[in-house]
Amino acid sequence: MSQVRVHNFSISLDGYATGEGLTEEAPFGHAGRRLHEWMFATRFGCELFGMPGGSEGVDQAFAERTNLGIGAEIMGAGKFGPPGWQDQASWRGWWGPNPPFHTPVFVLTHQEIPSMEMEGGTVFHFINESPERAVAIAQEAAGGLDVRIGGGPTVVRGFLQANLIDMLHVVQVPIVLGRGVRLWEGLEGIEQHFDCEIVPSPSGVAHLTFSRRQ
Amino acid sequence: MSQVRVHNFSISLDGYATGEGLTEEAPFGHAGRRLHEWMFATRFGCELFGMPGGSEGVDQAFAERTNLGIGAEIMGAGKFGPPGWQDQASWRGWWGPNPPFHTPVFVLTHQEIPSMEMEGGTVFHFINESPERAVAIAQEAAGGLDVRIGGGPTVVRGFLQANLIDMLHVVQVPIVLGRGVRLWEGLEGIEQHFDCEIVPSPSGVAHLTFSRRQ
Repeated sequence: MSQVRVHNFSISLDGYATGEGLTEEAPFGHAGRRLHEWMFATRFGCELFGMPGGSEGVDQAFAERTNLGIGAEIMGAGKFGPPGWQDQASWRGWWGPNPPFHTPVFVLTHQEIPSMEMEGGTVFHFINESPERAVAIAQEAAGGLDVRIGGGPTVVRGFLQANLIDMLHVVQVPIVLGRGVRLWEGLEGIEQHFDCEIVPSPSGVAHLTFSRRQ
Repeated sequence: MSQVRVHNFSISLDGYATGEGLTEEAPFGHAGRRLHEWMFATRFGCELFGMPGGSEGVDQAFAERTNLGIGAEIMGAGKFGPPGWQDQASWRGWWGPNPPFHTPVFVLTHQEIPSMEMEGGTVFHFINESPERAVAIAQEAAGGLDVRIGGGPTVVRGFLQANLIDMLHVVQVPIVLGRGVRLWEGLEGIEQHFDCEIVPSPSGVAHLTFSRRQ
């Protein structure tokens, strides 16, 4: 049975998944790299940048799950580019010619944009659909594999509100960001649908796994 | 050296330390008992209600620290009673004739109220002072022992903002409350003053200890 999963979704102690002031130079605004340092320090994170080394402990164990058994991703317009990317004809995502997805990726946007076929198997499709329809489309494209909801926070929230998420992996980073976009907003009582497990890492972050109750 | 400490301060995943709709019947509003179930299940919590038994693990280890070496408490008016308690001449706190403090307790309120001497060594004093002055007064009364900041969230926040807290023990409960009063509001960057350690409990909560960097 194809699952809908969220991985490596980093938030601050006060629940912000991104900071304020998002630009092309600062994709996470004033949060900078702070929400994802834990991942950059893992082997998984190093490989993303073509670097050797990286940690092999609990952070790595969680980080590398993100691609296992995934056949498609759904992401929000805000993850695909900085505000206004829809008006830059040359914008093809943050990730260069060979993005790290290697599957179909469905970008939720109100604008009609032709699909972009990238190297390495990533194809960006642009759709204007409800969470339910987006999941159905992505599951079809995933050919029986799982679908990852790639973020940002507003998108993850929408899929949680629609009760479409089977597994949510949140990484709590011990910083107080103060401003930005929060994950938990509008999700009162959401814990009733999930079993929650928390495990700390020597890096200082904590991994929270929410798995849907059967 | 007398320290200023916060213990057993429970918050939801979305950072609320109390819910919405506080009344005499519902001191934590719609949060009910959910933020403190972990503590009621410990031996410490059972003893508070004169009950035998209770758990002896990590939750108990943290819970019982709250009274060790404490010579005075400072609390907000909102912890002492429901909204408007200042106008009920008979109100002497939630805790009955023998409150569980057994030290001087300084209640921050704008109203002039005579001190209340209770059984068991607890004396409630009512003061209208800044966090700095309140700490000085409480340390004087504590006779060299430590001072506990008892909450609620607005009060803890104020003392954190004034950089007066040496140790902060937060208990993160895996529920999303959605509304109420948040701990972390207005504290951007506060982590720079603290070392943070997190340890999960089999009960499902996680204990976060913030100790001030020297």
